[in-house]
Amino acid sequence: MPERFTPTPEDKFTFGLWTVGWRGNDPFGEPTRPVLDPVESVERLAELGAHGVTFHDDDLIPFGSDDRERARLVGRFRDALERTGLKVPMATTNLFTHPVFKDGGFTSNDRDVRRFALRKVIRNIDLAVELGAGTYVAWGGREGAESGAAKDVRLALDRMKEAFDLLGDYVTGQGYDLRFAIEPKPNEPRGDILLPTIGHALAFIERLERPELVGVNPETGHEQMAGLNFPHGIAQALWAGKLFHIDLNGQSGIKYDQDFRFGAGDLRQAFWLVDLLETAGWEGSRHFDFKPARTDGVDGVWESAKNCMRNYLILKERAAAFRADPAVQEALTASRLDELARPTADDGLKSLLADRTAYEDFDATAAAERSMAFEALDQLAMDHLLNVR
Amino acid sequence: MPERFTPTPEDKFTFGLWTVGWRGNDPFGEPTRPVLDPVESVERLAELGAHGVTFHDDDLIPFGSDDRERARLVGRFRDALERTGLKVPMATTNLFTHPVFKDGGFTSNDRDVRRFALRKVIRNIDLAVELGAGTYVAWGGREGAESGAAKDVRLALDRMKEAFDLLGDYVTGQGYDLRFAIEPKPNEPRGDILLPTIGHALAFIERLERPELVGVNPETGHEQMAGLNFPHGIAQALWAGKLFHIDLNGQSGIKYDQDFRFGAGDLRQAFWLVDLLETAGWEGSRHFDFKPARTDGVDGVWESAKNCMRNYLILKERAAAFRADPAVQEALTASRLDELARPTADDGLKSLLADRTAYEDFDATAAAERSMAFEALDQLAMDHLLNVR
Amino acid sequence: MPERFTPTPEDKFTFGLWTVGWRGNDPFGEPTRPVLDPVESVERLAELGAHGVTFHDDDLIPFGSDDRERARLVGRFRDALERTGLKVPMATTNLFTHPVFKDGGFTSNDRDVRRFALRKVIRNIDLAVELGAGTYVAWGGREGAESGAAKDVRLALDRMKEAFDLLGDYVTGQGYDLRFAIEPKPNEPRGDILLPTIGHALAFIERLERPELVGVNPETGHEQMAGLNFPHGIAQALWAGKLFHIDLNGQSGIKYDQDFRFGAGDLRQAFWLVDLLETAGWEGSRHFDFKPARTDGVDGVWESAKNCMRNYLILKERAAAFRADPAVQEALTASRLDELARPTADDGLKSLLADRTAYEDFDATAAAERSMAFEALDQLAMDHLLNVR
Amino acid sequence: MPERFTPTPEDKFTFGLWTVGWRGNDPFGEPTRPVLDPVESVERLAELGAHGVTFHDDDLIPFGSDDRERARLVGRFRDALERTGLKVPMATTNLFTHPVFKDGGFTSNDRDVRRFALRKVIRNIDLAVELGAGTYVAWGGREGAESGAAKDVRLALDRMKEAFDLLGDYVTGQGYDLRFAIEPKPNEPRGDILLPTIGHALAFIERLERPELVGVNPETGHEQMAGLNFPHGIAQALWAGKLFHIDLNGQSGIKYDQDFRFGAGDLRQAFWLVDLLETAGWEGSRHFDFKPARTDGVDGVWESAKNCMRNYLILKERAAAFRADPAVQEALTASRLDELARPTADDGLKSLLADRTAYEDFDATAAAERSMAFEALDQLAMDHLLNVR
Repeated sequence: MPERFTPTPEDKFTFGLWTVGWRGNDPFGEPTRPVLDPVESVERLAELGAHGVTFHDDDLIPFGSDDRERARLVGRFRDALERTGLKVPMATTNLFTHPVFKDGGFTSNDRDVRRFALRKVIRNIDLAVELGAGTYVAWGGREGAESGAAKDVRLALDRMKEAFDLLGDYVTGQGYDLRFAIEPKPNEPRGDILLPTIGHALAFIERLERPELVGVNPETGHEQMAGLNFPHGIAQALWAGKLFHIDLNGQSGIKYDQDFRFGAGDLRQAFWLVDLLETAGWEGSRHFDFKPARTDGVDGVWESAKNCMRNYLILKERAAAFRADPAVQEALTASRLDELARPTADDGLKSLLADRTAYEDFDATAAAERSMAFEALDQLAMDHLLNVR
Repeated sequence: MPERFTPTPEDKFTFGLWTVGWRGNDPFGEPTRPVLDPVESVERLAELGAHGVTFHDDDLIPFGSDDRERARLVGRFRDALERTGLKVPMATTNLFTHPVFKDGGFTSNDRDVRRFALRKVIRNIDLAVELGAGTYVAWGGREGAESGAAKDVRLALDRMKEAFDLLGDYVTGQGYDLRFAIEPKPNEPRGDILLPTIGHALAFIERLERPELVGVNPETGHEQMAGLNFPHGIAQALWAGKLFHIDLNGQSGIKYDQDFRFGAGDLRQAFWLVDLLETAGWEGSRHFDFKPARTDGVDGVWESAKNCMRNYLILKERAAAFRADPAVQEALTASRLDELARPTADDGLKSLLADRTAYEDFDATAAAERSMAFEALDQLAMDHLLNVR
Repeated sequence: MPERFTPTPEDKFTFGLWTVGWRGNDPFGEPTRPVLDPVESVERLAELGAHGVTFHDDDLIPFGSDDRERARLVGRFRDALERTGLKVPMATTNLFTHPVFKDGGFTSNDRDVRRFALRKVIRNIDLAVELGAGTYVAWGGREGAESGAAKDVRLALDRMKEAFDLLGDYVTGQGYDLRFAIEPKPNEPRGDILLPTIGHALAFIERLERPELVGVNPETGHEQMAGLNFPHGIAQALWAGKLFHIDLNGQSGIKYDQDFRFGAGDLRQAFWLVDLLETAGWEGSRHFDFKPARTDGVDGVWESAKNCMRNYLILKERAAAFRADPAVQEALTASRLDELARPTADDGLKSLLADRTAYEDFDATAAAERSMAFEALDQLAMDHLLNVR
Repeated sequence: MPERFTPTPEDKFTFGLWTVGWRGNDPFGEPTRPVLDPVESVERLAELGAHGVTFHDDDLIPFGSDDRERARLVGRFRDALERTGLKVPMATTNLFTHPVFKDGGFTSNDRDVRRFALRKVIRNIDLAVELGAGTYVAWGGREGAESGAAKDVRLALDRMKEAFDLLGDYVTGQGYDLRFAIEPKPNEPRGDILLPTIGHALAFIERLERPELVGVNPETGHEQMAGLNFPHGIAQALWAGKLFHIDLNGQSGIKYDQDFRFGAGDLRQAFWLVDLLETAGWEGSRHFDFKPARTDGVDGVWESAKNCMRNYLILKERAAAFRADPAVQEALTASRLDELARPTADDGLKSLLADRTAYEDFDATAAAERSMAFEALDQLAMDHLLNVR
């Protein structure tokens, strides 16, 4: 039976180098695992059936490396990619680990830091494009504040806009075929982070000079840290035409960023998410941004990487069965999902205003008695998820 | 000393009829207070120094009233407004109390309900305009779901857009000088509500046919129910030119919607909010959408209404003193807020790319050692808030 | 296949009258369903395979009923019980709906209310015992406060202790075979409720005159409203010998009290809970305290009641399969659960202090390298839950 | 005016070495500040007016130091204490930083680790007593799990009890005058931590062999990470006679552990906490367990340390003024706090049962109309906090 849930590159599963390479340091503890060579990660992920790998500049080339070392590291990495066939669909910049970014990158109060941040991004964009990436993620994890006067948010948004406008100029000028994806997060490591949710990022994008170049990269756990429904957020991003990338993992409610493997945490939201992505025919990478349990050795790293993909494939099978079940189709109709698809006033405003059955003669009491029949529909989903139909 | 904090209509404080009129029913309890006559509310609020009053259609005219009763109730209300000088700067629609709205108004799966909802809104828009309102609030409290298949969010957003586009057609067609303000909320009474935060609402608005007609009406507690920083959200709404209205109240963290009087709950965020609104020169109503403690009699209703205004005025005084303090100016400079105001690349992209001091010769270690000095700045704010400077 | 998951009375499933009888009123909406006759509830629950039914005094006998009406209502209910064979293993008191309890029952600042509350409880205890109940639940939903000076918590705990001590006197004096179970909840309807979690209630019980008479009645959603792990809390209650009753339902994270059917909300915690109850051989009722979706008609009431039981039985089957799987046994050993069962110092303190391998010669670095192998173990649980082994 | 809020040792303010010594490493970033010599911390804290300093073994003596180095470090520290007069009222053990503790100390599944942990604690207890400490804190930050089968909670509680029983044996056998204080936390760095709240810890203590030796050390932010009211929790700990120590800091709601300086975060709860500690005449140290903002240099360290104490003293002055105000006394009576102090049935159970005014003749409707007058009372508190009376 496991063969059913073994991935192939066609499944488009990708992993960040920093995920399998996470050594287990946390706010209260030192690393529990050794450094992992990016080349080994590429090889192991290829063996497991992944499609690609992604990276922050500093994952591949430690901060402060000179040009020769950089060339050597990139060369080895590129060789491994060629050897394994793994792709690099996305890359991103580390604007958070080095202490110079303690107050942010694009919105640091320190202008020198902002300039350095922009140049650091641009340098890695060149490499990303060279390696074939089509998406460039921007997680502004340190763009925020812990206290009220420390950040003038309107000015900070001006600086954030300036940064994305400049990056848009750059890639356009270079003729790069690269789009940006902003990754929202509500807090941690800053007390409050700017663009805290999918919504805030989507809204921000509309004020850019080149909004068409910029979309979002939502992460499961980040939205759930604000208590938000992740599939709902993804649906709004799709609706806006702005789901440029996605980070899949697991989170158990509102607390610190847990980055569990996909499937752990809120399993039912994971099911609805897979249902949504597959139903919508979304074609991007299924990118896992998780942290293997710190309690585990290297065994746990590859075990959990494998299981991120396995769980996605199980849920994909279950969601497909749910949608194909005639009883589900009936239940959807009983819950009037077909009516939701129909415009409210396809007869036009005038007609609506003139329609006495819509208001004057509408029997609200009778209409209120129509059951929405959601309990039966939701149990069908549960039955499919648990494989009891 | 209290005289300092006694409001006048120039302070633009407004209250919903439903706030002072809340009878104390909650999910586990029956009302504790008698029905309050809207006319009495108008009179008492005027005595307390308020500028205006706002209402849902059903607050003024109980659901199901006939035209004659409606005319009588509106007449009495209008008389009270004229007698007291109170304004009606905003009105809104109740699309949540009657059981017919159990699955929403604009996005109910039931098309009949959607049509009824639109007509109900339009009817009250006419009255709102007649009474002089310039803003029409839309809180879609029932637009949401408790289970995954019950709502196709992309279709629901289509219906939501259709509704606002139709309303835009309507007010434009009528020549009304009226703008809409969407009020986000993450959950309660639905498991998850569509457009759950300021950000999601702002993003949604950009896809409307007439985005210029629609802004947001954020409520303190609603954003805090998602653990978000309310002043940050308001700052983004202002930055986007979309703060059309605001609901002020108090909330103690992520839990049920508490609707405490303004000042209760997170006092420091209240301080920063007032600082932001006043610094930004925002000219809208300071609208209180709160619920007087259910434990209290009618005495508590007017006591808490009075204190919403009092607390705003106290915080306004403190924020002004904070901004005027030379030590604060120095501290802001030490924290480099002046640099945040300066563009990152006023020299242009080319110059930034050519600037070796920005990257190649940048000493990140040295730059990282510059203190942001936020602790001192934040204590100055605390000292002003607590009146110890 | 469904036959496998059809309950019988031996499964000990019980339901509160108030659960199936909930009419759908919430803080923003009026009831969506008609009143349900307790006799009908008894009959339908019996048909569905339930073991018993539970009630608040006011569920059965509306507040303010006179003695004759009371006798009539109790008589009809008793007849239905006899006819169907349904048991009443538990009863409880409504100290929250009537406005007189707006500041609580046992800890209201108003002494008259406290006395009335005690008498109301005692009256229903007599009925509970008469109907065969062995457990009496006490949910102090209104024992709390919204503001700091409104409740002196130490005095309130004195009053709470006094109440339970008096009730202990009463049932002992009457010779009743009845134990109390305190139901914790962190907030809603009060801003903060006293004894907010399982832990606080367990601790409180130890200060009573007759701690042996009092245990806890934890509710899934209540603990999850504080972000706590429900199975962990139940494990501590079992460890303390104090799990006297349990309320099963579903909750999606930290927000208002959702009372979904069992299985909805956090499905993986539901799995671990069932695993724990069954592994521990706990013999109490599996009591569902949920609210059928307000969007649904009466159809949804019985659908969801049925599915609470169905989901429990599915999870019970999966947990049993998990525990019986040899691969799981191996994985548990690899994760050293067997070592956790062994005392740390079965050799005694002196021997531990003398054991140089325990400290002086302990190689912490080598020990740190042992993988806990939790990722593999957790995936085995996922595989069993999803039925892919 | 600042002189009013300058501390002296009589104020009993204490700080952990690890607080001022925190270098700013977080889950996404490297340290931003240099190592701080414990001797410098002692000297600076003494200058600022602190009473004492506390430490984890590894704060003073890096993990793995040999005996000679240990003696040297302890000697320097002791000299600094003598020179400055600073006390060491409390000490604790680091059972979380070294990777060997990745699955916990007292409840690690690995028995060798448990034995090592106990010996590590015992070794530092000897030093603590030598330095004059009367309280030994135990924060079990790694005692927990991220997945359901990884920890058998009942067995883990057995091991936790075994550990405290052995420690009780040890200190009793040595004749030490030392009490233990368990520090609860709900999560982070583990997904869920055992003994997650004050309540769970209090309950656990009652099952120990020597419960009288063990109390709690609650931390502001830890309880608030579960959305709990910190003053309420402290009140229950005081009521149980178990507040052996306290950790003061600031937290902005349910999210990662923020450890802001005292006063930041929820200011109103800070006010009520100080009011409670002072009203209760609690005599322990006011211990600050906070982290100076990572954005700041060493300047921010001492600035924030100073302001923890300053804010406590400001709030102490305000709470005293609140309690002394005759208008507050009247308001408390209007809210019937005096009645809460009176037993509910000082006339005994029999008399209560016989009292017809308590039930049969009780007019619930009339009683329900009595206002609790909490709004006025809470505004008086606000006015005192904001210094406008």
